[in-house]
Amino acid sequence: MRIILIGFGVVGQNFAKLLLSRNDDLYALYGMKPRIVAVVDSKGSVISTSAINLQKLLNIKKTKGTVAKYENGGKKNAEDIIESVDAEVVVELGPTNLKTGEPGMSNIIAAIKDGKNVITTNKGPLALALPSLIELADYNNVTLRFSGTVGGGTPILEFAKRCLKGDRIKSFRGILNGTTNYILTKMDDGLTFNEALVDAKKNGYVEADPTLDIDGYDAAAKLVIMANWIMNMKVTMNDVNFTGIRNVSVEDIKSAIKKDNIIKLIASSDKELTVKPTEVPKNNPLCVNGTLNAVTFSSEYSGHQTIIGRGAGGMETASAVLRDLIEIREVMSRR
Amino acid sequence: MRIILIGFGVVGQNFAKLLLSRNDDLYALYGMKPRIVAVVDSKGSVISTSAINLQKLLNIKKTKGTVAKYENGGKKNAEDIIESVDAEVVVELGPTNLKTGEPGMSNIIAAIKDGKNVITTNKGPLALALPSLIELADYNNVTLRFSGTVGGGTPILEFAKRCLKGDRIKSFRGILNGTTNYILTKMDDGLTFNEALVDAKKNGYVEADPTLDIDGYDAAAKLVIMANWIMNMKVTMNDVNFTGIRNVSVEDIKSAIKKDNIIKLIASSDKELTVKPTEVPKNNPLCVNGTLNAVTFSSEYSGHQTIIGRGAGGMETASAVLRDLIEIREVMSRR
Repeated sequence: MRIILIGFGVVGQNFAKLLLSRNDDLYALYGMKPRIVAVVDSKGSVISTSAINLQKLLNIKKTKGTVAKYENGGKKNAEDIIESVDAEVVVELGPTNLKTGEPGMSNIIAAIKDGKNVITTNKGPLALALPSLIELADYNNVTLRFSGTVGGGTPILEFAKRCLKGDRIKSFRGILNGTTNYILTKMDDGLTFNEALVDAKKNGYVEADPTLDIDGYDAAAKLVIMANWIMNMKVTMNDVNFTGIRNVSVEDIKSAIKKDNIIKLIASSDKELTVKPTEVPKNNPLCVNGTLNAVTFSSEYSGHQTIIGRGAGGMETASAVLRDLIEIREVMSRR
Repeated sequence: MRIILIGFGVVGQNFAKLLLSRNDDLYALYGMKPRIVAVVDSKGSVISTSAINLQKLLNIKKTKGTVAKYENGGKKNAEDIIESVDAEVVVELGPTNLKTGEPGMSNIIAAIKDGKNVITTNKGPLALALPSLIELADYNNVTLRFSGTVGGGTPILEFAKRCLKGDRIKSFRGILNGTTNYILTKMDDGLTFNEALVDAKKNGYVEADPTLDIDGYDAAAKLVIMANWIMNMKVTMNDVNFTGIRNVSVEDIKSAIKKDNIIKLIASSDKELTVKPTEVPKNNPLCVNGTLNAVTFSSEYSGHQTIIGRGAGGMETASAVLRDLIEIREVMSRR
C-alpha cells in the first residue's frame, strides 16, 4: 500500500513511528506493507516512489524542520502531489479550519476524485461537508475514514458502527472536548472560569485560539461527524445548536453540586443536535474528570453503553489512523 | 440460515421476539433470513423443517409451559436434535454449570463435531474448556461465538477484538459481575454485607445459589473467557486466583472512603488472572454504581479505554446473540 502523507506534525510523526515499530506484525497480521511514497509539510515536500526511509525522515524533520530537506525534496504542493504521485491512500493530517475547511477540503476532494482512498484527522472539511464528501467517495468507489477526528485514539466511531451491529442506536450524548472538561473539572474543584482557563493553558490543554474549545465549536464539529456516521443524518455545523462554557459561573457550579450534579459540556444527538453546559448526576458514567471524553449510546435492545477514553494525543490519534488504514486494506482486498 | 435453539428461557424467548421484530430489516441490512427449525426446552422439543412460527411458539410456551406442546412437539433431547436436524447454527442457551459445564458442554461439542456453527451464552463450558473448544471449532471449520457471556448486551468482547484492531491490548481490569457491584454500592451507602445481600435479593439480582456471584465464580468465569478471546491466553478457571466479597467488612468500606476510594470486585488480566475486592479511586471511570459492569483496557498506543454497560438482562443478552448470528452470517458468506 502506497501512502501520501499530507501534514507531518505531531500526528504525522507519530504515525511514521508507529509504522516503523509495527512493520513486521502488520505484515504478519494483516498482510499489509505500508510504504510512504510522498510527504508534504508546511515548508515543502518529498517524493520517492521506492518508499521513504521513515527513520531518516523523522531525523531530518527534527533537525532541519522540514521534510523538504530529505534527498530530492522540493516545494511541490499537496494538490500537485495528490494528483501526480501513484498511491492507494492519502492520509490528510492538515490543520483544522472550521470556517472554510481549507486546505484540507481541496486536498480530500482532489484525492477522492483521483480515485485514492482517504484517511483524515481533520474535523474542518467533515464538519462543513461530510454528507457530500461521503457521497463523492461512494461515487468514486473509494473509502473515506476519519476515526481520529472523534475521541483521539478512543474508537468511539467504530464502537457505534461495529460493536452495536444488529442493534439500533436511538440517541447518544457525551463529552467530546477534553479542554472544556478539564476546565469544568477545575471549576468543580472551586476555581473560577478564568482561573481554570489559566490552569488549562499552563498544562498545554488550550489551543492558540481558545475559542474553538471554549465556545463549543470543536464539540459541535465532532457531533456533526458522529451524527453523519452513526445516525446516517445528513448534517453540517449549521444544524447544531451550540453554546460553550464561557458563561458557566461559580454559582451555577455550586447550585449543581447541591443537587449532587456536575456541569458538563454535553453534546447530544436526539431529536436535534445540541452542545450545551448540562447538569449530569454525579454517579452517571458520563461524569468523567480531567481531559477525558465519554459518550453514552442508547440502543433499542442492548440498553445504554458508555465508552470513555482520552480524546487527544499524538500517538493515540496516530493509532486511529493506523486502524483506518487496516480497514481500507480489508475493503480493498474484498474488491 | 437454519437455527436450532437449545434452551427457551428468558434469553431464548427474547431472542425469538427479537427475530420477529427485526425480520424485515435483517434481510435488508445483512441479507439474512434466520429460520428456527428446532427448539428444545427442559420439558421437551419441537422440530419443523419449514421453520417454526415464533409468535405461536411464544404463546404456547407462555400458556402451556413448554415448546413440546407446539404441533408435532415431542421429547427428543438436545443432542439427538443437534445431530439429526439440518441447520447452520446451534444457539446454546442452557443453564450455567461451572463444575462440569454440562449439559452445555456436550451439546456444544456435538454441534461443532457435526459441522454446525455455535453461539452460546453459557459460561460453564467456556470457563472450563475454552482453549480446546476454540481448537475444536477451528479444526471443524465452524465458528464459535459467545458475546452474551460477558457484559450481557454490552459488547465488551467485540470492543477489544475489533475496535482496537492494529493496537495491542497489554492488560485489562474491570467489574464483571453486577450483583456484587450492587451489594458493594449499597455497602458504600452504609449497609452491612448481609443487609445489602437481602436488598439485592429483594430486587431480584441474586441467583438461587448466591455463591456464584458472591464468591467470585461468575467474575472468574468471565475473566477466563476474556483472557482467551482478547489476550490469546490458553486458560481455564484453574488459572484464576479469585476471592469474592463475602469478607468485605463495614470497616474496610469506611477505610476506603477515607482515602477517597471505593471497594470494587475487580477482575484483572495482567501478569496473572485475579478477581478480588480492590480499592479504586472514586473518580476512576471504573467506579460505576449499581448493577453496572465496566472494563478498562490498556493498549500500547491508544491509551486506556473504559466501556460501561448493564451486564445482564434478557433482551440485552438476546441482542448479543443476534450480533453473533450476523457475524456468523458474514463469515459464512466469505467462505
